[in-house]
Amino acid sequence: MNDESRSRNLVKLVRDLQRRKARERRARVVLEGRRLVADVLEAGARVLGLVVAEDAAAADAVPLLEEAERRHLDVQRLPRAEFDALAGTESPGGVLAVADWAPRDLASLAPPASCLLLVLDGVQDPGNVGTMIRTAHALGACATVALDGTADVRSPKVLRSAMGSHFRHPVAEAAFDAFAAWAARGGFTVLCAASDGAPVADVHRGGRVALVVGSEGHGVRAAWAAHPHRRVAIPMRGDAESLNAAVAAAILAWELLRDVR
Amino acid sequence: MNDESRSRNLVKLVRDLQRRKARERRARVVLEGRRLVADVLEAGARVLGLVVAEDAAAADAVPLLEEAERRHLDVQRLPRAEFDALAGTESPGGVLAVADWAPRDLASLAPPASCLLLVLDGVQDPGNVGTMIRTAHALGACATVALDGTADVRSPKVLRSAMGSHFRHPVAEAAFDAFAAWAARGGFTVLCAASDGAPVADVHRGGRVALVVGSEGHGVRAAWAAHPHRRVAIPMRGDAESLNAAVAAAILAWELLRDVR
Repeated sequence: MNDESRSRNLVKLVRDLQRRKARERRARVVLEGRRLVADVLEAGARVLGLVVAEDAAAADAVPLLEEAERRHLDVQRLPRAEFDALAGTESPGGVLAVADWAPRDLASLAPPASCLLLVLDGVQDPGNVGTMIRTAHALGACATVALDGTADVRSPKVLRSAMGSHFRHPVAEAAFDAFAAWAARGGFTVLCAASDGAPVADVHRGGRVALVVGSEGHGVRAAWAAHPHRRVAIPMRGDAESLNAAVAAAILAWELLRDVR
Repeated sequence: MNDESRSRNLVKLVRDLQRRKARERRARVVLEGRRLVADVLEAGARVLGLVVAEDAAAADAVPLLEEAERRHLDVQRLPRAEFDALAGTESPGGVLAVADWAPRDLASLAPPASCLLLVLDGVQDPGNVGTMIRTAHALGACATVALDGTADVRSPKVLRSAMGSHFRHPVAEAAFDAFAAWAARGGFTVLCAASDGAPVADVHRGGRVALVVGSEGHGVRAAWAAHPHRRVAIPMRGDAESLNAAVAAAILAWELLRDVR
């Protein structure tokens, strides 16, 4: 295959990866934005190729393209209008890339005897999902698990908000029943974030802890009632509406990691 | 003035309030979204009127419109396309409102002897600014101060992310020099969030604390060097990029409020 047809195939691949099914089947994702692409290259990910807007290729993206050349990566240049039509997020800065990535499964996680696992239970907003993965990674959680009903962890918006953490922190997917059984077998204490929960500072910590955060509107799923768990909350002023879901997850994770740090 | 011309004036006012200068001069803001408008009415804000998409007026917005009628508020119905052209945020759900609101000035704040003040120093992203105001309110900070260079706290996106906290928590604006002088006179300990700072858990707390958070890209402004301050950080994994600015502000505020709570 010559260079030109290989590049055309790259654009076709990016288009295909806009569908969740294609991302699942191909075990590949689209990374949007210069900083994210540079970070993921540095993390040692297998990057298949870059697509660059012509104006960016002559400006900010030059160092990144030199790096791509050193690595013999396929680079496809597109007029800005075509690039913008291809990119899904709002300000991708004229660069995107395709990389190998797939979520782990539970069996491949090896949680240490003392650890915090962040569990996303139906978190819908891709920005929040990505921010939560980024936070779990930065604070030292052992992994993030996305349960069914959560926004696709492979979506460009999630990858963009997570700022490269997918490539440095274990991110897994699991069905609810499989996760609940796995957590019980592993001796995890399950703590569900809920506004009527016990103040997080009063909750016993230590050992393996799974912190479950739900959707901003509805909280964790009702099915947890059939499994051992405790409900934990962040004490708030009485007249406050609530916290942003990613902010609440961050404060709870920070507080629960106090004894692990 | 008859009802029809008053309603036309409301739409004109919403358009005018898209400009920062107009929001400043009129001391009024636009609230977008059904939940936000309902919350702000409940908070006792002076709401001038509502603009509603015709499809929403016949569906989800019915209870809100009944409430508006009880309060004798001006309500303007628009075809959906016209409404969407008027609304600035992405999914305003067919309802927006105009309300009286202006930031406080420093002289009107009366910080107690022990308190945390959140200071936004050039935070650019309106979603982050709003989330930080919401967090400061929920966690019990005494006020939020936006320094020059920060996104306009009156913008619809900031109000939307703050979920009504503008109407329940003091939000002030100040120029940098004026703020630094006011904080020194008030005996505030100034703590600037910075990745090279001391771990936040090791920092002496108590009394009046001003937590200063900067832009996601550049941190707090260099001019702090000329004023007494300490730099504080959230300990992170070595291979982590950074934390989202609103997440970092939340964790620092939570930790610093430990002794105030």
